[in-house]
Amino acid sequence: MSRIVYVNGEFLPEEDAKISVFDRGFLMADAVYEVTSVLEGKLCDYAAHVTRLHRSLEALEMAAPCTDDELLQIHRDLVAKNDLNEGTIYLQVTRGAADRDFAWPDDPTPGLVLFSQDKPLVDTASSKRGIKVAAVEDLRWGRRDIKTTQLLFPSWAKMQAKAKGADDAWMTDPEGLVNEGTSNNAYIVTKDGTIVTRHLSNDILHGITRASVLKLAAEAQLKVEERPFSIAEAQGAAEAFYTAASSFVTPVVAVEGVALGDGTPGPITNRLREIYIDAARAGAV
Amino acid sequence: MSRIVYVNGEFLPEEDAKISVFDRGFLMADAVYEVTSVLEGKLCDYAAHVTRLHRSLEALEMAAPCTDDELLQIHRDLVAKNDLNEGTIYLQVTRGAADRDFAWPDDPTPGLVLFSQDKPLVDTASSKRGIKVAAVEDLRWGRRDIKTTQLLFPSWAKMQAKAKGADDAWMTDPEGLVNEGTSNNAYIVTKDGTIVTRHLSNDILHGITRASVLKLAAEAQLKVEERPFSIAEAQGAAEAFYTAASSFVTPVVAVEGVALGDGTPGPITNRLREIYIDAARAGAV
Repeated sequence: MSRIVYVNGEFLPEEDAKISVFDRGFLMADAVYEVTSVLEGKLCDYAAHVTRLHRSLEALEMAAPCTDDELLQIHRDLVAKNDLNEGTIYLQVTRGAADRDFAWPDDPTPGLVLFSQDKPLVDTASSKRGIKVAAVEDLRWGRRDIKTTQLLFPSWAKMQAKAKGADDAWMTDPEGLVNEGTSNNAYIVTKDGTIVTRHLSNDILHGITRASVLKLAAEAQLKVEERPFSIAEAQGAAEAFYTAASSFVTPVVAVEGVALGDGTPGPITNRLREIYIDAARAGAV
Repeated sequence: MSRIVYVNGEFLPEEDAKISVFDRGFLMADAVYEVTSVLEGKLCDYAAHVTRLHRSLEALEMAAPCTDDELLQIHRDLVAKNDLNEGTIYLQVTRGAADRDFAWPDDPTPGLVLFSQDKPLVDTASSKRGIKVAAVEDLRWGRRDIKTTQLLFPSWAKMQAKAKGADDAWMTDPEGLVNEGTSNNAYIVTKDGTIVTRHLSNDILHGITRASVLKLAAEAQLKVEERPFSIAEAQGAAEAFYTAASSFVTPVVAVEGVALGDGTPGPITNRLREIYIDAARAGAV
């Protein structure tokens, strides 16, 4: 590891990238985040990530740590300093540091941390082979539309799915309907070719890639229904996939032990992945 | 501020007390904690806090950062180095630092942070005057019995209660029954003198002070019922109070805008506070 990391105004070698133990992001998960993909050194869907960041900050009455122009410059500086061609930029804003108290501090200085992760996003094993998902009851808090760092449960759910021989969890509501994956939105394609994904609410993250993919699907004359679906319906679907900023559109080839179709990525999934990556490249800044 | 703080093996001035931005406690709230009260330089209910810490670690398959003997010594060193007579010791264990990934790292080195907070616990305004609580719908995750740092919601709920003119929130389940306070367990005393507090389950924290107080109440021949109660039942109660490690037994004198009795701390509450503090002092190590 030899990254340059941004921490509260400084670019530091990752070994020196540290925050106060009194930062409320550390003590209370009082923090929000975004992950932006980088293709050919450019930021994908960047404006939408900034818009969602502001939405998260406003929901929690947190101050912005810098201007939007400064934030873009930090992203670009990190790409340059780390010679990042393909990968992600992770961004976390915290309410700031203060002596520990459940009550929010008066007028704290927000914390800001960004770092890069250098990894292939386009040419990946999961996009070629597809992944398997297992059902895990969703125990997260009630405001999953706010992108907070309260990620212990989704992380744990992923491990529970792995223990069942799957790659990720599809987290289900009390009625057994799929909310979303642990860090992604979930979709099926019915046998008549309709793309189905849960409608937006406080139950799921309002995915940036989700919004882009649904728009591109409509432009490609594909039928889309925004409604919940069950694990059983998913097991009987023609295809399934998930979307996330860092993995675009990725096929799901088995749901809770049942292979979909012939167990390989479906044609609509593959087409959407291509369309999305083309659009992401074209819109990258 | 001039505390000495413990961070991963070192005692440091608080300005230098920092952890890696890659610590999963910071990135994912992948961390658990305990708060132990200190009276006359000694640790209250200490063994029970260590037992609960192990329960939290085991639930999340997290490794212990050190032996129990070492942990006790760190607590005592912090008391000594900070000349702490009365206050609290905060302890946080994280899964450790690793490049960001929802999947748990293989064999990580757990993170360990402890710091003191010097403050009066016995002679407090809240224990003399009592506090007011407001009802807030409980939006926390489903495993509140595990003491994790996913505290954004309780912190936010406290601010929502303050916005309503109260001091703390009593968080309610979908049926309107009280789960607990934002960092404490909730109780009422009925007009026939019965102490009522919610039964243990995954819905609430298994409070150390709760266990001690219920045991002491039984020894004092007070009647106890462990069952849920509503905000309306609380508003009609003779008394109410909460328990927490850092505030022992504290009176609640108003619930969602309705004063209880004459609006002053009740006799059973005051008696339990005295009994608990005597027992805590006697058992402190």
